[in-house]
Amino acid sequence: MKQQCVVVKIGGNVLDSPRDLEQFLDSFAALPSPKILVHGGGKLATELSAKLDIPTQMVEGRRVTNAETLNIVTMVYGGLINKSLVAALQHRRCNALGMTGTDAALIQAHKRRSVVDYGFVGDIDAVNISTIQELFAIGLSLVIAPLTADTETGTLLNTNADTIASAVASALAEVYEVHCWYCFEKHGVLASVDDEGSVIPQLTFEQYQTLKARGAVVKGMIPKLDAAFSALRAGVQRVKICHASALSAYTTNTSNGTVLVIS
Amino acid sequence: MKQQCVVVKIGGNVLDSPRDLEQFLDSFAALPSPKILVHGGGKLATELSAKLDIPTQMVEGRRVTNAETLNIVTMVYGGLINKSLVAALQHRRCNALGMTGTDAALIQAHKRRSVVDYGFVGDIDAVNISTIQELFAIGLSLVIAPLTADTETGTLLNTNADTIASAVASALAEVYEVHCWYCFEKHGVLASVDDEGSVIPQLTFEQYQTLKARGAVVKGMIPKLDAAFSALRAGVQRVKICHASALSAYTTNTSNGTVLVIS
Repeated sequence: MKQQCVVVKIGGNVLDSPRDLEQFLDSFAALPSPKILVHGGGKLATELSAKLDIPTQMVEGRRVTNAETLNIVTMVYGGLINKSLVAALQHRRCNALGMTGTDAALIQAHKRRSVVDYGFVGDIDAVNISTIQELFAIGLSLVIAPLTADTETGTLLNTNADTIASAVASALAEVYEVHCWYCFEKHGVLASVDDEGSVIPQLTFEQYQTLKARGAVVKGMIPKLDAAFSALRAGVQRVKICHASALSAYTTNTSNGTVLVIS
Repeated sequence: MKQQCVVVKIGGNVLDSPRDLEQFLDSFAALPSPKILVHGGGKLATELSAKLDIPTQMVEGRRVTNAETLNIVTMVYGGLINKSLVAALQHRRCNALGMTGTDAALIQAHKRRSVVDYGFVGDIDAVNISTIQELFAIGLSLVIAPLTADTETGTLLNTNADTIASAVASALAEVYEVHCWYCFEKHGVLASVDDEGSVIPQLTFEQYQTLKARGAVVKGMIPKLDAAFSALRAGVQRVKICHASALSAYTTNTSNGTVLVIS
């Protein structure tokens, strides 16, 4: 039987709410090891860009990253958010190590090649499982910021946090029984966008396609669910979309949020 | 015989000069392992503070760190500079891991207690040598940003990079033959502040005190030399103050810069 490993993605809106964040960090610190926290960014980067008069451009829920924006997200995601999370976890006696994809060559990536120019945006080629295992072996919990680098050029790249969580969880599924939780400010995948009471307990890929077609799943939820289903297909044992507060019930496995299922 | 280990401190002015920095990174990447790079910050943080209308306050060459300034240095030192250095070293096939003192509980620190209120500034209590050895053992070179955290409160703390280099080198001297190089934009300790040709090849603590008394050593050089002599007294094999370009001659041990000596 494989050892269990948990990969938790935490969304930007939770990071912006001090009370929710404190509670979430208590829950993460209490999780059994080995474990990985992948965090987004969001509002803080947008706010700093505004203060510095750098316009924020979004295409299909994804930020377009020019050189100035790359510096902003490197500062906010790789610095302010990542280090604040690490310090807060260390304070909770969780031996956290903050990383980006380029640290310890954790994630191999390249600058996105596409018709739409997303700028300095990374697409993931591979995740270095053996390094993760070595870091786990010395008792560390990893806190990963949504940045990678192009090894060919040494350029940092803004990289979607949902995709990083999916890629890391998928790679680890080779050697662990991986549980991947996407925690954010909603209580799961909703049947009606504005009705928090309409959480769908179990969701197949086909049901997701139907929801998308009728506009119940929109914006940032689309790449999130694409990433989450990709992890499920890659052999991740359990993929869940839930509110950040649901993480406190990890060990009791209480029914909350949306569990993705192979149809 | 102890294994050799090199700790290199790189100053903020070198980071601001792309050509000098590229050359320095080539030299660092070529150094034998195990190795640690400790970096400062300086101008970038000051520039960002100015753009955001946060005044920079200095006392005795040290920045006073209020909550807003702490966020700035966390972004610039822990994010932009640290991750850019890591990506540039990975590009040079040096397996770098960027850290602050709070990552992996590398450095234990507390908020400075002093008559002058320096704000969120850290003083170092201890360096976790066993974690450094474990990270070395998996082939990593460490890149340390000048930040620590107060474990009691979980608050990040701005921490002098010269002091971090000294504390890390001193702690490692228990188990390694440590060489600690302070690299910056001058060619060593100068007998005359404005004469780059007046590099002192060897300097004792007594000579340093004389230079300080006659005003030849001023401002940031004072805490730098205090930190450097502290490392020498703690058993670091060789402590050198030199230009960043001198690092290329590390293995040939060419005479350049100022070597600190026990009188």
